[in-house]
Amino acid sequence: MCQLLGMNCNVPTDIVFSFTGFANRGGRTDEHKDGWGIAFFEGAGVRLFVDHESAITSPIAGLIKHYPIKSKNVIAHIRKATQGHIALENCHPFVRELWGHYWVFAHNGDLKNFAPILDGAFRPVGSTDSELAFCYLLQQLRKRFGDVLPSREALTDALAALTAEIGAYGIFNMMLSDGSALYAYCSTKLHYIVRQYPFTQAILSDEDVSVDFSEVTTPNDRVAIIVTEPLTTNERWHPFASGELKVFVDGLPTS
Amino acid sequence: MCQLLGMNCNVPTDIVFSFTGFANRGGRTDEHKDGWGIAFFEGAGVRLFVDHESAITSPIAGLIKHYPIKSKNVIAHIRKATQGHIALENCHPFVRELWGHYWVFAHNGDLKNFAPILDGAFRPVGSTDSELAFCYLLQQLRKRFGDVLPSREALTDALAALTAEIGAYGIFNMMLSDGSALYAYCSTKLHYIVRQYPFTQAILSDEDVSVDFSEVTTPNDRVAIIVTEPLTTNERWHPFASGELKVFVDGLPTS
Repeated sequence: MCQLLGMNCNVPTDIVFSFTGFANRGGRTDEHKDGWGIAFFEGAGVRLFVDHESAITSPIAGLIKHYPIKSKNVIAHIRKATQGHIALENCHPFVRELWGHYWVFAHNGDLKNFAPILDGAFRPVGSTDSELAFCYLLQQLRKRFGDVLPSREALTDALAALTAEIGAYGIFNMMLSDGSALYAYCSTKLHYIVRQYPFTQAILSDEDVSVDFSEVTTPNDRVAIIVTEPLTTNERWHPFASGELKVFVDGLPTS
Repeated sequence: MCQLLGMNCNVPTDIVFSFTGFANRGGRTDEHKDGWGIAFFEGAGVRLFVDHESAITSPIAGLIKHYPIKSKNVIAHIRKATQGHIALENCHPFVRELWGHYWVFAHNGDLKNFAPILDGAFRPVGSTDSELAFCYLLQQLRKRFGDVLPSREALTDALAALTAEIGAYGIFNMMLSDGSALYAYCSTKLHYIVRQYPFTQAILSDEDVSVDFSEVTTPNDRVAIIVTEPLTTNERWHPFASGELKVFVDGLPTS
């Protein structure tokens, strides 16, 4: 199993604080040490960092913890291998292009007997059930909507049906983003929080670090953090319901 | 215009020495400061680093210069914008998946009136002629070979025809790799060198740095470096002929 971290904001924001706590679970405070990855949207582009080292020993993770890359949509993942060996091609997030946009995907869970028929448009490079699910999901979206990017509402309806369909094969907590919204589906475990004015202090649960967000934000900033297990000890995190798909836009859940 | 750097080896090798010289051309010894990128194959996976900062100021380029990532196939690029504004989505190399393999592509040059019809299977995210050429190239390969990865010989023949076709629209120096071979096509300017036993000292032309490869290699190592302009002052670099496609496998040109 693995853990997921997502961020969706109304202005480009760095994820240094949350990633610092999250990365500790990659071998220090938890056992997810079989690779990690993080993808930042920046305009239409994506910066993707993946590594099969643990997030606590990786020099690249060290860079991310100290270099504030600002983004409105971020998805990160730490891996404890269940299906697929420890290799770079099996590290989440995965990225593919559809409709002239990059799509970023990460999964926490384990699918059993999931063997969809792929038409060749999107094929896994690695050997995880996760990348297979991502390829199937994009294939089905393209089949349904053809060559035109659908409205967010139409896409949300299609994703609700597809995530439920895939979720029937096992545990399927997932995050997906095209850089304009972050789609989060909870099969068993996912939490979120919205930080907005008035900002307060937050204290990490996985490291002796706190930040007073009122000192590093403007009153208009709004940031949603979505994560497998709450990252802070002094804030109220909202659990997702099982089977719930939430769409985050500009730092707020819209569904 | 831009500059290209590629490496193809028979054993995973780091590119620290060559990238150190090359990165200097991203604003110090040359004017290619509108972004840069580098892609490393690692097994079937790819590490892609792109940045719209110049390669001499980017903290991520700093990491690459000091963190020896080992790979058998690497493609790097420094950009001086001609078509497409300065943005992350316009930074080379570009990556797409075809036949269950990642393909990495970078281009040096400028295409005029190049407007191929795309069927939607691969669409550019950014606004460069380069990404458009890459999408067209993959589309045509998929049309020709269907859902099955062809032999290297068949692929080379197809690429020779496609690169000549695209090259008719302007300057089209390019590098392409699927992690098993590196395809380099010269429209106007490209050089290569093969380093193998007995290894000697090499002196960078863009920075006061030299390395004695005999101290950091084994007698079985073989490394081909392909680059727009020679990187060292004391080695004999081989120029490509205009219109020449070379395929590098295990550190040697095979065609």
